[in-house]
Amino acid sequence: MSIRVGIYGYGNLGRGIENAIRQNPDMELIAVFTRRAPESLKIGTEGVEVKHVSDAVNYTDKIDVMILCGGSATDLPVQTPELAKMFTVVDSFDTHARIPEHFDNVDKAAKDGGNVAIISSGWDPGMFSLNRLYASAVLPEGEDYTFWGKGVSQGHSDAIRRIEGVLDAKQYTIPVEAALDAVRSGSAPALTTREKHTRECFVVADENADKALIEKTIKEMPNYFADYDTTVHFISMEELKRDHSGIPHGGFVIRTGKTGANKENNHVIEYSLKLDSNPEFTASVIVAFARAAVRMANKGEVGCKTVFDVPPALLSMKTPEELRAQLL
Amino acid sequence: MSIRVGIYGYGNLGRGIENAIRQNPDMELIAVFTRRAPESLKIGTEGVEVKHVSDAVNYTDKIDVMILCGGSATDLPVQTPELAKMFTVVDSFDTHARIPEHFDNVDKAAKDGGNVAIISSGWDPGMFSLNRLYASAVLPEGEDYTFWGKGVSQGHSDAIRRIEGVLDAKQYTIPVEAALDAVRSGSAPALTTREKHTRECFVVADENADKALIEKTIKEMPNYFADYDTTVHFISMEELKRDHSGIPHGGFVIRTGKTGANKENNHVIEYSLKLDSNPEFTASVIVAFARAAVRMANKGEVGCKTVFDVPPALLSMKTPEELRAQLL
Repeated sequence: MSIRVGIYGYGNLGRGIENAIRQNPDMELIAVFTRRAPESLKIGTEGVEVKHVSDAVNYTDKIDVMILCGGSATDLPVQTPELAKMFTVVDSFDTHARIPEHFDNVDKAAKDGGNVAIISSGWDPGMFSLNRLYASAVLPEGEDYTFWGKGVSQGHSDAIRRIEGVLDAKQYTIPVEAALDAVRSGSAPALTTREKHTRECFVVADENADKALIEKTIKEMPNYFADYDTTVHFISMEELKRDHSGIPHGGFVIRTGKTGANKENNHVIEYSLKLDSNPEFTASVIVAFARAAVRMANKGEVGCKTVFDVPPALLSMKTPEELRAQLL
Repeated sequence: MSIRVGIYGYGNLGRGIENAIRQNPDMELIAVFTRRAPESLKIGTEGVEVKHVSDAVNYTDKIDVMILCGGSATDLPVQTPELAKMFTVVDSFDTHARIPEHFDNVDKAAKDGGNVAIISSGWDPGMFSLNRLYASAVLPEGEDYTFWGKGVSQGHSDAIRRIEGVLDAKQYTIPVEAALDAVRSGSAPALTTREKHTRECFVVADENADKALIEKTIKEMPNYFADYDTTVHFISMEELKRDHSGIPHGGFVIRTGKTGANKENNHVIEYSLKLDSNPEFTASVIVAFARAAVRMANKGEVGCKTVFDVPPALLSMKTPEELRAQLL
């Protein structure tokens, strides 16, 4: 029997989930829930219902897992607890500093509803978190490093777009190669924000705008750019659409550590992602954790879980016997 | 209360376990069990008992987890089931083709004894297996590649040492850079054995030996060298001891896959290890899984498990709250 999936929210991530479900033959998309007028929404899969979010309550018997595709700032802190009372749910809440608070809220709701909720799946938090955990458990004496990019930062792109005279913009976060090499050498360097990443901005300005002022405003923007070496390129709208319409991302999690009677041996563990589409890869991770959530719920587990709590075998379509014979 | 550990077998791996335990303050080494005369064995930790393997049966109440450090060819197929009847055990059984059979034998014994047994921990099988599983679950449409090295292969070094006229030898397995690059490009190449790895041999020959014959014998040895491009260097015993006494290893697990409505987006997931000491890193992984085995046993689980069955949080010294706040 297929795992019956609902998608709650239909932006880039929701569309990614829809595509990912097609690559997982044990899953079936039942319905997409939207805050918009359902009849105004055209989705990519024929024969699948589009419903208003207020109808979700009528689907508790028709859906095995609801995948929440809202944003972390305001949507998920409300939606995940609310939906966890009714459904097995999975989200990709990614505001790292607020994860403990979100966990507690979701845990209470999921326990009230007798459901399983997996929060903060995706790749960071998610796959990167798993690699940080495995590496630090294996090498207790060592140093962790996470680098992001090369990739598009939506938040930084938005910040540029809010500057007067800017029509559109894309910002790339780029890890500094020399910093990566220093980390891989095992020297456990202390790296400043500026030493780890650079920021490259492609900006379309209004023809009457003061470009020098825009560039200065970007480079001096606190939190977003002031602590980084930032490059600003002014390009045309045509160039932006032609060369910068993708949403690539990726990054590196590296741990170096020592072992031996005299700590004489160095080890380097490195995990990296190179992604053409950030939302589609994130969706692919979430869908695997949705499978695990349903299996955990079927075993009678309840409450909030993270990627740290999920036995890896539950993520796979393969049986335990197949996994041991083919992948172990 | 500390986790009380026993080490069963005291070679390179056993010594690695002993060192790793010192890096894990929640663990305490209780005793080392050996097939040799216990009084002949000098271990690295003062105050720890050295006992004959036949005494293990008297330690069932004094040890929380027994770590088996024998070889996969003949030791572990017998020892792991035998000890799993009495103890929570962890091994690093690494004969991939025989894992299903080993699992079944250990599972029966562990269930008879009401114990948990984790088999095939280490890095391959082990960390590499986990990365193959996670990556294939996340990108169901894609290709997996595992490369080993640069590192010392004990089996291939031994095979060279058995040739007449060879006094000693070290063999390095080296991944082919061009093959790695082809895989990372996302082109999903079909690679032959010869295209993936080369083999480099450092040989100390008897002064009267026929070096040309030794080189020919190595290069034409079926299974071990015939399918590879192999380089043979004759060096002195002094050079071998000076330059090739380490046991480095490592490798790469790479999966490339596609997502999107038209499979238009490529993704590359790469995990790599660069290890100064293969046995010490293997030991470090095993010790983390020993912690998990004890925690699973304390929860009342029984039977044989693999790295695929272990919730990652159980590997870490940190509490679930700390993990969520610091690593998620």
